[in-house]
Amino acid sequence: MQLLQDRIRKEGKVLPGNIIKVDGFLNHRVDTKLMEAIADEFAKYFDISDITMVLTAEASGIALAAICANRFNVPMVFAKKAKSDNIEGGLYQSEIFSYTYKKKMTLILSKEWLNKDDKVLIIDDFMAKGNAMQGLIDLVNEAGATIKGIGVAVEKGFQGGGDRFRNIPGVPYKALAVIESAEPGNIVFREED
Amino acid sequence: MQLLQDRIRKEGKVLPGNIIKVDGFLNHRVDTKLMEAIADEFAKYFDISDITMVLTAEASGIALAAICANRFNVPMVFAKKAKSDNIEGGLYQSEIFSYTYKKKMTLILSKEWLNKDDKVLIIDDFMAKGNAMQGLIDLVNEAGATIKGIGVAVEKGFQGGGDRFRNIPGVPYKALAVIESAEPGNIVFREED
Repeated sequence: MQLLQDRIRKEGKVLPGNIIKVDGFLNHRVDTKLMEAIADEFAKYFDISDITMVLTAEASGIALAAICANRFNVPMVFAKKAKSDNIEGGLYQSEIFSYTYKKKMTLILSKEWLNKDDKVLIIDDFMAKGNAMQGLIDLVNEAGATIKGIGVAVEKGFQGGGDRFRNIPGVPYKALAVIESAEPGNIVFREED
Repeated sequence: MQLLQDRIRKEGKVLPGNIIKVDGFLNHRVDTKLMEAIADEFAKYFDISDITMVLTAEASGIALAAICANRFNVPMVFAKKAKSDNIEGGLYQSEIFSYTYKKKMTLILSKEWLNKDDKVLIIDDFMAKGNAMQGLIDLVNEAGATIKGIGVAVEKGFQGGGDRFRNIPGVPYKALAVIESAEPGNIVFREED
């Protein structure tokens, strides 16, 4: 997606340790008009007439997922992050390793808001190693629901996290900006699929 | 706001300990069309032509704030919750007590995304004791920016948290559903101001 890639080139900051900051428009300050454009781009790759909900994980995915869900006329559900020793009943659970918090956390989702009849579009703003995404997929599978697509705004392609999602049978995957390499002043994107 | 109060009456669950769950449409599964209606209602109480940003706190405020910001054509910024011992530089900080996590946390906000020229509309989905809201106000004051309004979707009026925000000189405050008392099957709202 040219608009998103241009924005990353212009405003993204590359920090030591392969950290790419896009917090001026994606995940701290959020440009909601760009989120709308991203939603419309996702609509080209997924059959949004056939979904019942958009699913994401807290916290930074929520803004994009809310704008997408509003555009697609379905509810948005976000999985919450809980400390693994503090989980109530009635929940789907999936353990992930959080690089942000440097520890194991558990994604939790109330069984009230996801069931086997749901057709789920999973959306996230940013993917590095794909752990949170795998956790979301596990939650949907635990519910016996159907994944109709996986959409990511920015993927750090050089960390390989997205590759395991590219060949899930029957599940289209789309990342709108796949970063192949990043040095200050030189961010290289993968060619469009 | 009648639409919101009706929804709370119909779908809200009252649990022991004065807990009111509205997670079917507000803060776990999110009805984004209702969020749009809430945004339009806020627009009656605040001069949205004179704001530069919408500010909220992660995580559950993000969906409503994103929809509001999109409706008002300004960026949305969310303050992040950090453990108090893990704070970088270049940040505004405000210590709050989190009832969710039962410990002190620090709201942090990059100085890049809030400065003294900003005119801020603070939005949150749910207010009990008002600690997170006070933290957001402190961040804006620390930046020397101007608060143009404080909007809350659901306030637990009987916990008194909102009262301290009702008389800040020059800052309009509006909660769209103020719960005066809550027992299973009987949720009572405060009369409109």
